[in-house]
Amino acid sequence: MKIRVYYEDTDLGGIVYHSKYLNFCERARSELFFGAGKSPVYNEYHFVVKKICATYHKPAYFGDIVEVKTKLEKLSRVSATLRQSIVRNGEILFEMDVTLVCLKDNRPARIPDYFLELFQKLS
Amino acid sequence: MKIRVYYEDTDLGGIVYHSKYLNFCERARSELFFGAGKSPVYNEYHFVVKKICATYHKPAYFGDIVEVKTKLEKLSRVSATLRQSIVRNGEILFEMDVTLVCLKDNRPARIPDYFLELFQKLS
Amino acid sequence: MKIRVYYEDTDLGGIVYHSKYLNFCERARSELFFGAGKSPVYNEYHFVVKKICATYHKPAYFGDIVEVKTKLEKLSRVSATLRQSIVRNGEILFEMDVTLVCLKDNRPARIPDYFLELFQKLS
Amino acid sequence: MKIRVYYEDTDLGGIVYHSKYLNFCERARSELFFGAGKSPVYNEYHFVVKKICATYHKPAYFGDIVEVKTKLEKLSRVSATLRQSIVRNGEILFEMDVTLVCLKDNRPARIPDYFLELFQKLS
Repeated sequence: MKIRVYYEDTDLGGIVYHSKYLNFCERARSELFFGAGKSPVYNEYHFVVKKICATYHKPAYFGDIVEVKTKLEKLSRVSATLRQSIVRNGEILFEMDVTLVCLKDNRPARIPDYFLELFQKLS
Repeated sequence: MKIRVYYEDTDLGGIVYHSKYLNFCERARSELFFGAGKSPVYNEYHFVVKKICATYHKPAYFGDIVEVKTKLEKLSRVSATLRQSIVRNGEILFEMDVTLVCLKDNRPARIPDYFLELFQKLS
Repeated sequence: MKIRVYYEDTDLGGIVYHSKYLNFCERARSELFFGAGKSPVYNEYHFVVKKICATYHKPAYFGDIVEVKTKLEKLSRVSATLRQSIVRNGEILFEMDVTLVCLKDNRPARIPDYFLELFQKLS
Repeated sequence: MKIRVYYEDTDLGGIVYHSKYLNFCERARSELFFGAGKSPVYNEYHFVVKKICATYHKPAYFGDIVEVKTKLEKLSRVSATLRQSIVRNGEILFEMDVTLVCLKDNRPARIPDYFLELFQKLS
């Protein structure tokens, strides 16, 4: 998934504001669903972020087109850990492991098959 | 209501990103409710923005403490128009007229007394 | 220019947060430049928002793909007024007139030809 | 540092959008400087985020007043690791270790005394 860096993403340092990389990764996760003709919100199920570990290698700048890559790192019955990286012309700018927990009616729940298939395709 | 300008509010131009002034005004509107011990979401009622006219006079910068001032401009049965200004040390940076429409269950509805009192105090 | 609505664009009302439509319009303005192989920041020239008048017709929702359309409304030596609309499947959700002022070294300046050509193509 | 949760901070899930907690922590870091009569941008020095590890315990909701607490975890010549937590009524909602690297003219640089004193007070 390709993302253009706009004014709103930058701060006075002239680079992308640090938390915006998380937004970019979340957009890419949503597109995993949309791209498969599904929605990230299914019946009463959806995911919330439980844990994030991220490393900032190099900054992205206004006008850059970056790409978000997503791989499955670990899949359990109620959670999925993804490794996402943000890349510009083959150069890694940002890497993150994010653990998502599945909720149903706001309680942890077993990931339904509807979502499982998508994660399995990422591995 | 006083608001500090943080990194996230700025863009690479070194000034506050233009749509953020709307956020600042919305925070001030929410605080009108919270400050009176009320909530902007009451039963099935809440407000949505219908119209905005805004003029940008001078930019706000990182670290600035700005103040949002709010006056009632016009009140009807289903909508309220507020005049909000953002001020730094007595200097007006930004002015906006915003028209809010009351919704109940996502349909236009007569503004309940719960909210009316608040607006009337602003005039 | 097509834009997907992501989680970050919504608020607890389940719709796109009102100031985000301004962000969408700004992205479209930036793409006018990028799409023509130019940059919105040229030498010491760039634009700032001077005035905005916007009407919210219908909300956009998570997952929607909306389109931003931009027309030139008025062009003067130092400013340009654009009419931008956000459309979903042919239905207008949002309309805005935005006046941009050209700055050089943070002072109002005559719009350079580099930018003029782009605006003229919009009319 | 106390922070109110506003509409803009929430998403359609009705809770604070996950990357916003990073913004809240960044505001608290900026206030460490402002509160001491200093600026986070000093001469050509400033900090960038190098690494973040965060755990989300419980969500924050619209209208909540949360508090950001900051402790020094580790201080080296060029970087500082802070432990920040976001708390609501004594309950921890979010915890994060963030490593900041000092830059001068966008190159890693030894942290000047101007900043060192502030970090040392946090331990």
